[in-house]
Amino acid sequence: MAADVLLFSNSRPPGAEVPFAHAVAPLREHLGDRTVWFAPWAGHDLDAYTGFVADALSEVLGPLDVRGLHREPDPAATIRAADPARETVFVGGGNTFRLRRRVGDNGVLAALRERTDLRYAGASAGSNLACPTIMTTNDMPIVDPGGLDALARLPVQINPHYLDPDPLSTHRGETREERIHEFHEENAVAVVGLREGAWLFRSGERLTLDGWTARLFRRGHEPAELTAGTDLSWLLATPSS
Amino acid sequence: MAADVLLFSNSRPPGAEVPFAHAVAPLREHLGDRTVWFAPWAGHDLDAYTGFVADALSEVLGPLDVRGLHREPDPAATIRAADPARETVFVGGGNTFRLRRRVGDNGVLAALRERTDLRYAGASAGSNLACPTIMTTNDMPIVDPGGLDALARLPVQINPHYLDPDPLSTHRGETREERIHEFHEENAVAVVGLREGAWLFRSGERLTLDGWTARLFRRGHEPAELTAGTDLSWLLATPSS
Repeated sequence: MAADVLLFSNSRPPGAEVPFAHAVAPLREHLGDRTVWFAPWAGHDLDAYTGFVADALSEVLGPLDVRGLHREPDPAATIRAADPARETVFVGGGNTFRLRRRVGDNGVLAALRERTDLRYAGASAGSNLACPTIMTTNDMPIVDPGGLDALARLPVQINPHYLDPDPLSTHRGETREERIHEFHEENAVAVVGLREGAWLFRSGERLTLDGWTARLFRRGHEPAELTAGTDLSWLLATPSS
Repeated sequence: MAADVLLFSNSRPPGAEVPFAHAVAPLREHLGDRTVWFAPWAGHDLDAYTGFVADALSEVLGPLDVRGLHREPDPAATIRAADPARETVFVGGGNTFRLRRRVGDNGVLAALRERTDLRYAGASAGSNLACPTIMTTNDMPIVDPGGLDALARLPVQINPHYLDPDPLSTHRGETREERIHEFHEENAVAVVGLREGAWLFRSGERLTLDGWTARLFRRGHEPAELTAGTDLSWLLATPSS
């Protein structure tokens, strides 16, 4: 049976200063007193980013054993050897293309595909990586990702940092909703636009939205507003209906 | 000698209703009375998009022979057979990943690489395609592009629809400037953030910004503001300095 998955839009809602302070309860439940293998490859300065997240998690959860996966001699081997009862994976945010390229190159993507029995947490780019593909990222393709396919720890796509259109804007660039509509011109998979502060939690055949609101996009349907606490388990059975 | 290149941020400045009405002079000079092969593959409804652009160009320039390249039995062969004195290429906007995928698959990318003697015009995604890579697009990767390398009709990158940060925003997603900074964490090529209404024109060893302002990003330098009419020819010699 696949392990639980906890996917954040991002680490801080608007106005909040301390990362993850809005999500203490689900993080405590998900991480418990496990060793957290933090994957910082979406970022630029891997040590600094790992330290920042380790400090943030320890500040809101109390002392926690957070280790940078990038510091392991063979990160993929570390994943393959992980104890699912005592260790978990946390993939951080940054640039999704850079993350996909690095975990493809170093074998962590393949190892994570094998270890669906390991709990997975992600934020922003780390949430994109848990989806069938990284096609609903907001990031700039600053490196060739080496493929857009991802972990498929759930059968729906997440658009993190979901942003509502600004009714006063005169800018001609696509709104986020228009970009997701373009995605549905080419793909049938449902997209959850997770506003900042929201997260999805999957446990077995249950999928729940919490923390804040989201907007659900399905091909051929009008977009739908979702409130915190909404049960989305039906999407696991019919992700493209 | 390589032919002239005219690259628009987009087809309409904020507030303007008629596409390309802000750019009559350079379009008249560049297109003249040539046959325009319009490449609509960044869009979704190719016939409708081609008709829209043909109407828009004819409205501002007078009657013009605009033909949809997608309607040719072998679009790549049409490019290879084009007469550089009487025909030109115009690549439209939409989704850059979709454009890159389709011109890669149908051979138009390869044909355009051979035919640097053909004048090239582009808007938005069509401008991204003229750069060394499509890495500075704003679009969502809705399809696997099959590669990020592009036409390199100039040695600098364009970020179209360049958008200044909103000082009132509480959104945690990256600003455009932060995204371009991430690009420079991985790449050395200069990036011209073309605000809506602006264009770049390359003729031989001259490169000029016109129409509106832009912001220039170079790795290791502070960003610089550029006014309409700025001569950027020095960037052709030192694109990553």
